[in-house]
Amino acid sequence: MDPALPIGVFDSGIGGLTVLKDLAARLPNENFIYLGDVARLPYGTKSAHVVIRYAQTCVQFLVNRRVKYVVIACNTATAMAISEVSHMVSVAVTGVIEPGVKAALSATKNGRVLVLATQSTVKSEAYLREFERHGYGTHVEQIACPLLVPLAEEGWFNHETTAHVIQSYLSKVQYKEFDTVLLGCTHYPLLEESFRRVLPQSIALVHGGPHLAQTVAQKLTEERLQNSSDSHFSHRFFSTDTISSSLPIIRALFDHPVDFELVDLERQ
Amino acid sequence: MDPALPIGVFDSGIGGLTVLKDLAARLPNENFIYLGDVARLPYGTKSAHVVIRYAQTCVQFLVNRRVKYVVIACNTATAMAISEVSHMVSVAVTGVIEPGVKAALSATKNGRVLVLATQSTVKSEAYLREFERHGYGTHVEQIACPLLVPLAEEGWFNHETTAHVIQSYLSKVQYKEFDTVLLGCTHYPLLEESFRRVLPQSIALVHGGPHLAQTVAQKLTEERLQNSSDSHFSHRFFSTDTISSSLPIIRALFDHPVDFELVDLERQ
Repeated sequence: MDPALPIGVFDSGIGGLTVLKDLAARLPNENFIYLGDVARLPYGTKSAHVVIRYAQTCVQFLVNRRVKYVVIACNTATAMAISEVSHMVSVAVTGVIEPGVKAALSATKNGRVLVLATQSTVKSEAYLREFERHGYGTHVEQIACPLLVPLAEEGWFNHETTAHVIQSYLSKVQYKEFDTVLLGCTHYPLLEESFRRVLPQSIALVHGGPHLAQTVAQKLTEERLQNSSDSHFSHRFFSTDTISSSLPIIRALFDHPVDFELVDLERQ
Repeated sequence: MDPALPIGVFDSGIGGLTVLKDLAARLPNENFIYLGDVARLPYGTKSAHVVIRYAQTCVQFLVNRRVKYVVIACNTATAMAISEVSHMVSVAVTGVIEPGVKAALSATKNGRVLVLATQSTVKSEAYLREFERHGYGTHVEQIACPLLVPLAEEGWFNHETTAHVIQSYLSKVQYKEFDTVLLGCTHYPLLEESFRRVLPQSIALVHGGPHLAQTVAQKLTEERLQNSSDSHFSHRFFSTDTISSSLPIIRALFDHPVDFELVDLERQ
């Protein structure tokens, strides 16, 4: 396989750009193709058979454009579809659940981790299974937070209402007994300042982005697939509906405009 | 055409059930088919070409099941796709924009109407055009309220956070100068109590549901299509993803469980 081929990254929307940012920081010589399936977002309220179908069409799109690696930058799609997606392709596939669990296990001292995620990710219990697989005897609880994605998309990153909503969700458990909160949705890191209005500094706030970038870097090295040619260095962005380059999320993540090319996955 | 055929009603999700409720109350002898395109919701954040495509597949589904009338119970789909949809079918098509404008014009005394709607409906300016078409010299302003649909779906109908979000949106204008607020999204009537926490009683709160039911009843009479046989009286509910019958919206609207049959519009 040609190491100059891009790494394919997809998400239900633009939350996965937080993951792309971590990846590009760790792997500055790599080419990336990002796909945001905004025409069908959110995935987090939808059921397994629908999310699997959507994830499969996203991966098919990336494969058709010849990628050397697939990153699922969406917790819901990872939770529900990583095995179906892995069977479709001959390249490596990495999702965001395992790196998130590793980040939480590195951070926790008392072994009590609170996972915040979408309705569908919580229901799938993928995080609980992954913590169990690591067998640390960690005490994990999870809370579904359906309003946080719309709040991030509204651009209310550091906002009284967002803090208020976070407080409402956290009050469902004795959250001060946990020493680590794992952000189990790629939109949530954008709301970090609102989280900090509610959570004491003694509670670590972690997400899978940096560990995921670490995993991808390691696998590329093992398989001798690191891009050595920097002459073709490029990022390309695709989406299934129009994305304004002035969106708050884009402005928060990039210091330059990002142009998305429109694709129709239902007719590819 | 057989008057016993059902009336087809569709929405991006389940907000349109508020419209169905108004229709069924006004037309108790009619049969209804409801379709909620929850696998692709929301429409309100998506662009015209995507919403038109989705609305067309919804209408195709209803037409394949032989309906005598099509009701678009979604403001975004009405705003963006009513003319495309009307051209597809030989039966009457009614959307929610015109009835909403009529309701507002009946209610306003000072001619100042504030329209609250989704991002896409606001951007389409369909409400502004419809008010102009009625030529009342009404002063209309509109505010996009993207968080209200997720709040309704979360079931926070009468909730401090919802009131807080409504207050944030209303503060974008001098809302006390308006004597009528038009709820331009079929989810919003569910939040009426939260609106009332913020709005003084002197401001009328209206939506298109009852006027729409009136329009449909009138057209059925004109075309002699009222159902006289009550032996086949039935409601059928379809959706593009699983809908739990214990959802807060369903419990708020119906005093009995509602079973949705699953359909795949992308492969019909």
